[in-house]
Amino acid sequence: MARKIILDLDTGIDDALALAYALGSPELELIGVTGTYGNVTVDTGVRNALAILELFGRPDVPVVAGLPHARGRDSFEVLEVSEFIHGADGVGGAQLPAPTAAPAEGGAVDFLIDAVRTHGEDLVIVPTGPSTTIAAAVEADDTFAERASIVMMGGALTVPGNVRPWAEANVHQDPEATDVLFRRARDVTMVGLDVTLQTLLTTRETAVWRKLGTRGGTFLADAAEYYIRAYETTSPHLGGCGLHDPLAVAVAADPGLITCLDINMKVDVGGETRGRTIADETRLNDPVKTTRVAAAVDVERFLGEFMGRLTTLAEQTPAH
Amino acid sequence: MARKIILDLDTGIDDALALAYALGSPELELIGVTGTYGNVTVDTGVRNALAILELFGRPDVPVVAGLPHARGRDSFEVLEVSEFIHGADGVGGAQLPAPTAAPAEGGAVDFLIDAVRTHGEDLVIVPTGPSTTIAAAVEADDTFAERASIVMMGGALTVPGNVRPWAEANVHQDPEATDVLFRRARDVTMVGLDVTLQTLLTTRETAVWRKLGTRGGTFLADAAEYYIRAYETTSPHLGGCGLHDPLAVAVAADPGLITCLDINMKVDVGGETRGRTIADETRLNDPVKTTRVAAAVDVERFLGEFMGRLTTLAEQTPAH
Repeated sequence: MARKIILDLDTGIDDALALAYALGSPELELIGVTGTYGNVTVDTGVRNALAILELFGRPDVPVVAGLPHARGRDSFEVLEVSEFIHGADGVGGAQLPAPTAAPAEGGAVDFLIDAVRTHGEDLVIVPTGPSTTIAAAVEADDTFAERASIVMMGGALTVPGNVRPWAEANVHQDPEATDVLFRRARDVTMVGLDVTLQTLLTTRETAVWRKLGTRGGTFLADAAEYYIRAYETTSPHLGGCGLHDPLAVAVAADPGLITCLDINMKVDVGGETRGRTIADETRLNDPVKTTRVAAAVDVERFLGEFMGRLTTLAEQTPAH
Repeated sequence: MARKIILDLDTGIDDALALAYALGSPELELIGVTGTYGNVTVDTGVRNALAILELFGRPDVPVVAGLPHARGRDSFEVLEVSEFIHGADGVGGAQLPAPTAAPAEGGAVDFLIDAVRTHGEDLVIVPTGPSTTIAAAVEADDTFAERASIVMMGGALTVPGNVRPWAEANVHQDPEATDVLFRRARDVTMVGLDVTLQTLLTTRETAVWRKLGTRGGTFLADAAEYYIRAYETTSPHLGGCGLHDPLAVAVAADPGLITCLDINMKVDVGGETRGRTIADETRLNDPVKTTRVAAAVDVERFLGEFMGRLTTLAEQTPAH
């Protein structure tokens, strides 16, 4: 039986690839998308998620708006670097018809809490943006904190950050929220830059999608190539773009893709290193570990799965 | 055949325990001690090393003075926190008769280079203080950089530092030197706070040494208990003192004690996080790894070996 999954996306480009990965994975049954801010605003992200679900023939999947800004702030503006990487529309200008469906009623926090109460450990939640909405669910409901299985893309333990030398973008947006997640949720897997900067996409791969001549293939190729070009500027040493969010979804489908360190984590919320993800020294020798950090990844197997699944999915969309 | 070992010590208390561990290890043949600064000055550290070697009946082991301060400075003063932890004399006031032997002639850099040229991979070098002297050998001699097998105590990758939230004491003293080590030496194992804060000594163990009624047992108990009391103030959450330097020696004797991440490392030498040890993002996907970082340790096995070896060694010293 497929495992149920909810994605909490700030739908920029790698979120779009992650959404496609979930749709293309037989091990996963996507029961909803919640929308957070980060790469884009909540409104833009929700719009993109709806449109991508329609493009890939899944308008039935509900999309629910989440909290629009970090807990310590009263608004959110897209960072210049985010806009550079994902484009102002979040998909690098790739053609994406406006969705016909509207977001689902209600809020993402209640949607998440209800889903965990209904499905328990049969459900995995994959946040790929700031932790604001997920942390609100953790704080609002003890059952959620106890039972939710969470595979998050975010953080950087053994490698430098990407918006500060010590901070990864998702955690940087709302350090207090990720800190709540690490300290109070019971089952968190952190898929951070440690591994996602090892899983790179290049134009060799996007050419495969473009050749399909389908709407889905062209969308994936256009969006991913925009992202790859941005990486040529921001991280020229990598030779490709990091498949951050898709890797988190892949781990939800197949935990064996990564090797983890069992470490009780915290986020530095004050001082010079605000936004850093690091072991909580006060729980270092606690035998109960609530967090696992991905330290190594089977790059070849993941890239094979990624290309196979997204290509098959894009083949099934209408031709131009 | 025992593997040859040189210890590069700033002989404070855990360095003393490390020296005793080396003397008590049948897998290791101690062929020299080089003296660095850190917990104490080079002069005090060399004096302590000579005295401890005599206490344990090994006045034949040569002790050679190393460089007296960090490369970017022109002097060294013991930090207040170092003096608090190790005492002004470096051994917490434990009785240690003045050595009769003098330091060996010549400098530590040449001693290290000659030893690697003579013994190659049959030798392991264990620095337990700042990397100044070792880095000077790396820069002075390509053969040393290529062939030296180095197991260093220092750094913190997955856990906070101990003198700054991002910096461990040894690396903090001379970040540029450890950076040279990470970038230019070919075989470095980092045994950092990640593992050494898991291997704790308490007064339950020191009581065993005290009961021996020997000079060696009393020295070990007095020094270690001073150290444990300091940890009660600096790190009350641990419930013991970290066996930093002894663990590095134990790993030199038995690499199977730790599980490592193969990561090409660097040290942040500028910016807010000066002194941080972290992956070098430009060599993240380089298949050749020159550094291994200890991420997990077999605590029980190490503590068993540690107590067994030091107790046997202390038993063989004269009674009071």
